[in-house]
Amino acid sequence: MSAVRPSPQARPELTALGAYRLAGGESAPVKLNQNECPQDWPEDLKAEVARRLLRRPWNRYPPLDGRALREALAGACGVDAEMVAVASGSNEALLALVQAFACGRRVALVRPGYSLSVSLAVAGGAEVRPVLLREDFSLDLPAMVEAVSDPDVALVYLASPNNPTGAGCPRDDVLTVVEAARGVVVLDEAYAEFDGQTLLPAVREYPHLAVLRTFSKAFALAGARVGYVVAHPDVIASVRAALPPYNLNLFAQEAALAVLARPELVAARVDQVIRERERVYQALQRVDGVRPYPSRANFILFRTPLDAGVLLGRLLARGILVRDVSGQPLLDRCLRVTIGAPEENDRFLDALAQSVAP
Amino acid sequence: MSAVRPSPQARPELTALGAYRLAGGESAPVKLNQNECPQDWPEDLKAEVARRLLRRPWNRYPPLDGRALREALAGACGVDAEMVAVASGSNEALLALVQAFACGRRVALVRPGYSLSVSLAVAGGAEVRPVLLREDFSLDLPAMVEAVSDPDVALVYLASPNNPTGAGCPRDDVLTVVEAARGVVVLDEAYAEFDGQTLLPAVREYPHLAVLRTFSKAFALAGARVGYVVAHPDVIASVRAALPPYNLNLFAQEAALAVLARPELVAARVDQVIRERERVYQALQRVDGVRPYPSRANFILFRTPLDAGVLLGRLLARGILVRDVSGQPLLDRCLRVTIGAPEENDRFLDALAQSVAP
Repeated sequence: MSAVRPSPQARPELTALGAYRLAGGESAPVKLNQNECPQDWPEDLKAEVARRLLRRPWNRYPPLDGRALREALAGACGVDAEMVAVASGSNEALLALVQAFACGRRVALVRPGYSLSVSLAVAGGAEVRPVLLREDFSLDLPAMVEAVSDPDVALVYLASPNNPTGAGCPRDDVLTVVEAARGVVVLDEAYAEFDGQTLLPAVREYPHLAVLRTFSKAFALAGARVGYVVAHPDVIASVRAALPPYNLNLFAQEAALAVLARPELVAARVDQVIRERERVYQALQRVDGVRPYPSRANFILFRTPLDAGVLLGRLLARGILVRDVSGQPLLDRCLRVTIGAPEENDRFLDALAQSVAP
Repeated sequence: MSAVRPSPQARPELTALGAYRLAGGESAPVKLNQNECPQDWPEDLKAEVARRLLRRPWNRYPPLDGRALREALAGACGVDAEMVAVASGSNEALLALVQAFACGRRVALVRPGYSLSVSLAVAGGAEVRPVLLREDFSLDLPAMVEAVSDPDVALVYLASPNNPTGAGCPRDDVLTVVEAARGVVVLDEAYAEFDGQTLLPAVREYPHLAVLRTFSKAFALAGARVGYVVAHPDVIASVRAALPPYNLNLFAQEAALAVLARPELVAARVDQVIRERERVYQALQRVDGVRPYPSRANFILFRTPLDAGVLLGRLLARGILVRDVSGQPLLDRCLRVTIGAPEENDRFLDALAQSVAP
């Protein structure tokens, strides 16, 4: 009877995107494909988090909305706790923003940009209105202002620095978009620590600006999955209505609190990444046929004469995993490499020189 | 200039529900409000999970889709790994199911029922079509069959045992709904271990049946936030397209794997809860004015002559936190108490007798 019945139809725009996948697999001797921090946290910090975790009851739900973490983040950002919502990675926060504000409406976002911004917008029930960057990867401000003036655009997603281009979006451009937008403007600052600039203080002035931050990059805590959004209390209340309760487990809350207390270590690592980024950029400029693009983040976009998939395979054969981003507009033959530890960067540069040699 | 601009408008159906809240707060000397397992995991198991966690790099993303956990769960359920998706609590799995199948359409669900099923359906962009249970809390099968025959009902949410009533939904009734439904039927088995029955094997036969399970109840791991859904590979592929990637952090994956390896401890605790449930049920029958309802889960619904909010306050004054569920249809003057450890149940019974005494 029912065995012959077909499986039910999911939304075609969602199934067309499919589940997230990483070309080249999840690991390699030199893993430079996910913009992670190259160093783990010191043993003593990890041990202290583990001790706190052992003292908590695992059979009980964690604190409902991560209150202690929200308060610590609010203190660090100089805002009230009612202006902060925590999420299981900034992806979950972006999804909740889409659900709260743009379900059944439109999300404007730039291409090339963060690949998951498209799938999270679609998963949240919105239609995507892409805005193409200029050839030099700068924001096409007139095109974006036109897009956000569409009354059906309920959410705008911008990232500064942008991923995978590495370009920053000037403060004045962001604020021009904010002024023009009819809906919420989400500014993803996942890589802001490597840029040294933030628009966080502007959330007090603009009730429709929401700033996304993450613990997965400069804070070296991708394994704990913690992100947060800072915005007007009304925006945060709506985000929290969309987020599943108890979305952060005990480990996520304890680990994030512990690393928040070590800003000096984060700053030292960010300094090293910035130094290495400049060194790798200059080295890439010297490799025949390779064109790197300037970056304000912890990765570098580069173009070569080779097909990106072919080069990805050659680098992988030498133990180096980078990201093929050539599927996006303007990024033909482009790859993205994360800035790793100095010796990892050296191995990448050697492997690249060998891989592009004729 | 923009300081006078109002904050942007979120979807009114979502903001009307607001964020999840627990009347009576999050803790009390005797906490019987969230259907948690009364015992934590033994120290040696927690220490082993902590050791595994310390050996993993926290700066790296966790395994993308929890492959090892998916495979272990698939083995435990007797299905292929392609029939399992893991989530940060079964709430996240339900939200992804709504997003994939019912965004912009309708979700049929029973009232009284799981309160979050309504808010997750709304957060996922669906309209809720409630179906009232009968006075005895059994499923009104003709009403449900009529609801699910609506071509716009893309998802049906059923729970067996149902929360907060504690009643089971007979296998034949569920299958009648499955046969009649045009969309996906989600059967939430969060409390199935306390009932001793499951429809899990039926997912192989019905490509539009999805079974939800959780580690938060019988598996005593609410603090780690792990749930999963078992269904046809096509349904799972759509759920995974809707779920944010890397949704389970290292702790969630390690802890779930560790407790999965201890089924004998889970079974012993379930047995104790069932024995205590029968003892508490009989004791409640002897309290003047109190009417308990039969339960197949780890909680008991009961009605008293008092206003539920008043009784909640009186119990709380005696250190006992239960759940006021009187806001739902048919549940006037009803509360729900979780089955705790024997001494907690005794304290609850004493406090209740004192609180309802004239």
